[in-house]
Amino acid sequence: MSYRAPVSDIAFALKHAAGFKQALDDGLYGDLTEDVVDAVLEEAGKFATEIIAPLNVVGDRQGIVFKDGAVATAPGWKEAYRAWAEAGWNGLAAPAAWGGQDLPQAVNVACLEMWNAAAMAFGIGPVLTMAAIDALTAHGSESLQRAYLPKLVSGVWTGTMQLTEPQAGSDVGALRAKAERTPDGSYRLTGQKIFITYGEHDMTDNIVHLVLARLPDAPAGSRGVSLFLVPKFLLNADGSLGARNDVRAHSIEHKLGIHGSPTCTMVLGDNGGAVGFLIGEENRGLACMFTMMNQARLAVALQGVGIAERATQQAFAYARERKQGRAAGVKDGMSPIIAHPDVKRTLLTMRALTGAARAIAYATAVAIDRAHRGADDKMRAAAHERASLLTPIAKAFATDVGCEVSSLGVQVHGGMGYIEETGAAQHFRDARIAPIYEGTNGIQAIDLVTRKLPMADGKTVANYIGELRRTADAVKAANDPAFGAAGARLTDAIDSLERATAWLLKDPQGEAALAGATPYLRLFANAAGGTLLAEQALAAARMAGNGSAVARMALARFFAENIAVGASGLESTVTEGGASVNASEAALA
Amino acid sequence: MSYRAPVSDIAFALKHAAGFKQALDDGLYGDLTEDVVDAVLEEAGKFATEIIAPLNVVGDRQGIVFKDGAVATAPGWKEAYRAWAEAGWNGLAAPAAWGGQDLPQAVNVACLEMWNAAAMAFGIGPVLTMAAIDALTAHGSESLQRAYLPKLVSGVWTGTMQLTEPQAGSDVGALRAKAERTPDGSYRLTGQKIFITYGEHDMTDNIVHLVLARLPDAPAGSRGVSLFLVPKFLLNADGSLGARNDVRAHSIEHKLGIHGSPTCTMVLGDNGGAVGFLIGEENRGLACMFTMMNQARLAVALQGVGIAERATQQAFAYARERKQGRAAGVKDGMSPIIAHPDVKRTLLTMRALTGAARAIAYATAVAIDRAHRGADDKMRAAAHERASLLTPIAKAFATDVGCEVSSLGVQVHGGMGYIEETGAAQHFRDARIAPIYEGTNGIQAIDLVTRKLPMADGKTVANYIGELRRTADAVKAANDPAFGAAGARLTDAIDSLERATAWLLKDPQGEAALAGATPYLRLFANAAGGTLLAEQALAAARMAGNGSAVARMALARFFAENIAVGASGLESTVTEGGASVNASEAALA
Repeated sequence: MSYRAPVSDIAFALKHAAGFKQALDDGLYGDLTEDVVDAVLEEAGKFATEIIAPLNVVGDRQGIVFKDGAVATAPGWKEAYRAWAEAGWNGLAAPAAWGGQDLPQAVNVACLEMWNAAAMAFGIGPVLTMAAIDALTAHGSESLQRAYLPKLVSGVWTGTMQLTEPQAGSDVGALRAKAERTPDGSYRLTGQKIFITYGEHDMTDNIVHLVLARLPDAPAGSRGVSLFLVPKFLLNADGSLGARNDVRAHSIEHKLGIHGSPTCTMVLGDNGGAVGFLIGEENRGLACMFTMMNQARLAVALQGVGIAERATQQAFAYARERKQGRAAGVKDGMSPIIAHPDVKRTLLTMRALTGAARAIAYATAVAIDRAHRGADDKMRAAAHERASLLTPIAKAFATDVGCEVSSLGVQVHGGMGYIEETGAAQHFRDARIAPIYEGTNGIQAIDLVTRKLPMADGKTVANYIGELRRTADAVKAANDPAFGAAGARLTDAIDSLERATAWLLKDPQGEAALAGATPYLRLFANAAGGTLLAEQALAAARMAGNGSAVARMALARFFAENIAVGASGLESTVTEGGASVNASEAALA
Repeated sequence: MSYRAPVSDIAFALKHAAGFKQALDDGLYGDLTEDVVDAVLEEAGKFATEIIAPLNVVGDRQGIVFKDGAVATAPGWKEAYRAWAEAGWNGLAAPAAWGGQDLPQAVNVACLEMWNAAAMAFGIGPVLTMAAIDALTAHGSESLQRAYLPKLVSGVWTGTMQLTEPQAGSDVGALRAKAERTPDGSYRLTGQKIFITYGEHDMTDNIVHLVLARLPDAPAGSRGVSLFLVPKFLLNADGSLGARNDVRAHSIEHKLGIHGSPTCTMVLGDNGGAVGFLIGEENRGLACMFTMMNQARLAVALQGVGIAERATQQAFAYARERKQGRAAGVKDGMSPIIAHPDVKRTLLTMRALTGAARAIAYATAVAIDRAHRGADDKMRAAAHERASLLTPIAKAFATDVGCEVSSLGVQVHGGMGYIEETGAAQHFRDARIAPIYEGTNGIQAIDLVTRKLPMADGKTVANYIGELRRTADAVKAANDPAFGAAGARLTDAIDSLERATAWLLKDPQGEAALAGATPYLRLFANAAGGTLLAEQALAAARMAGNGSAVARMALARFFAENIAVGASGLESTVTEGGASVNASEAALA
């Protein structure tokens, strides 16, 4: 089955628990109204459902054709991309000064979920363009901005991020691509980049590559990398397309999934050097890169949410239709498998994990909006720290959830799930990239523990945990039997999170902390995700006439009693298990 | 990289903790000596490593060609199969009366791990032949045995299991294939079967299909199915191949993985009816099927172990070679990623889960041997119950481990893991079938809770838990710092297992028990697997001059402190969370 954007669920998750409604009420978005947001989400849902989702299968089966350096995307893809860009979706959150709509990042993020759920291989392209827009807006010279931003914002051109080289993956500082200064102030780049998403394609007539390279006199390591804008076609003085630049796709990869998305090896400077223009300052490319990466990391989180949502929809549809065995209390005939308790557990796990990942990702987006639009420096700084804290959690948890949920989706289909025609296997294959790119999930966990927990002497994380605790208290105070033991179980999880946090903060750079980073991130996400689901249920219960309160309480209860309860084990793994990792040389031999 | 059979690890796991050495010493296997077993394992390892493993990639890339009803396996596959059969591997544990070697099932199971690790799509073929041998040996008439067993045991012919139909998957009783009696005592079968592994191929000149079908006057449901032997070619009186039977492959499936293995839709009776011969009694096919299924379930467990082992080997090799970043305490240059704590955790998780799954699967095989060869009825009955208890745990846990470990293997490779040429993705794709076929893992969990826990009024499971507890006590008594907190953590896990078991036994058929079955099975496996790893470490420590004791203690400690600690959460999920599943209608809408 195809994907149907769950617009009302998305709108609810955004407004409640993620804090978007509060931000609207606080005037963060000026005169933007809830009605406008609802209308935007509705339209996005329509576009995703009707135009993009049908392309998912052909992208997977037909994939990319690479010939003589040119990439042909699958039938229908470039038309869909152009229609998407023309409808203004690419510049939704981009500055109005460059033709964007200046809408909240939170709304853009909700739309990103829908593009990626509809076709993950399609959705990843704009993620890179948006990242390039961010980097140029924050660090580009005025002339670069004037020349490139309008076309990037409109989506008439797309962007790429060229960081990775064969010897430089997680360790960006190991890159070797070279940039030489020239008398006219531009640079000549030479080198090879790998795994470049949409490095070459036929959707637009120019591509704007953002490339990390090293100047001849640069210091070693990550303090010696600079960021350059390297267009596929150079621009004439009037802005029209000029000479072909010396940057080319050498080959494309044969991947496990996202077959509709070209992943290119790029060669720069085979014919004397690719013309590049410095973004930001020399040797300060890492800072520019992080501007791009943070945007891209949250976007990849939404890939995880999107693929989980799509897999969940498909599994529910199959489980309602497929009949096997007879459920308890039924007299005749076979029952749909959704009636069997073990299948119920699987489906609830899918829905609960997806909802938790969505809630965390949206909350991160609202924090980013507050960091940019907050009333004063202090509020902006606090929101920036909140966003910094949540970004690695959103990225790693949501992408792990994408894999776990799409695997459960295969399982619900039984033997049919293993047959490619069914489609469940495509989600399973597609999902698997998201924990890897834009910083592996291990890197996210290390970022969380070593850089994010120590922010503001631990007050950033302490404040967040305090918020979670207030929600758990509210669940207990609600005293609604539909919540079951959710209040108590969430409190247990938050207690575990608090103790594990305190333990890590004693030596957040230590080997034991590094060894505990991955389980700690999951513990954090379980506590936060479960609490945010409960927050949604409380919000629904407060709203007169919202029919979803009972369902939301049941889902929050399921998460708390079945998933959040893993917290004590994870706490123990963090605080005690790390020593076993670092005492394990013999077992690693 | 390719696979190298870890023969000494396999032999150690088999002899210690799984109880094979004890069984040898008890005289269970007559005059079989440890030296002979070692030599057999050594030869199997050589064959798997040198002959089968190199076929894995071509099986995946080239896969199966289906044309005009005929299946061509990938280049080299049929030659390898024939060499394998000629070397006697197919009949390793088969009765000597039919040409087998009558070696222990435990040794056969260890070899099955190696065949499947070398190429899972290759290994699944013999699993079905061995299952057919078991069914025929236990339930076939003497004339059928005489006609078919010698060729099945030698592997000159292969077997299939034809149960599944479009509307009858987990619910076998829903099958519709028909069998009509004929005056000569044979039957004529008509119907369609799907997902038939090696239903057609070019490795042997005959294929012996074991087909479930329904007689015209059969009762409805699973009490009305009968098992038939339906050869591809009928036999002449002298045993030579005669007329082509009316059973044909109609098409093959396009699957996520195990591309080297043909998965066929079979049509019986398109030209008047396929000739079939009854196995066992009419309408008693289910009992015969379970004889096949139990064998096949344990074999599939070994597919999980094998693919996990292969993925682990590949990840270790990559992590030792790939350099990124600089580990703590290192002054210059980049470190191999195996030196980073987060990667260490990943690799240790892979090795620990693989070892635990192997230990449980081998222990199941030894119990099967004791069930067949035990000194008296009482011992055989007890061993049969032990095997029955452990089989669903072995199948579900080991195949889940296969998926989890192969996914971690992709992750260790970073971006390279997502590229098909690397090979890590093939393991990830191949592994995904094993939790589905031969009874989904949900079916295994339900079997464990509803049928296996209640055996002997709960004494079977109580005895097993008692054994685990004695090992945990021995770990504590050893008081070796290398065990860290393993003794305490294993005891915690066993306590959780005991409480959850008692809770389930109050109403093992109830909806709450069914809802808790899957987490309960994982809790059981975590407690048992961790304890068996500790048992191996204790055994190594007892053996003078065994250099592996330190490594085994470190691995057992890692499992106990990082994986077994999830037990309390799982216990809570079973005893409390089941209610939330069954109170969740609103959340399932």
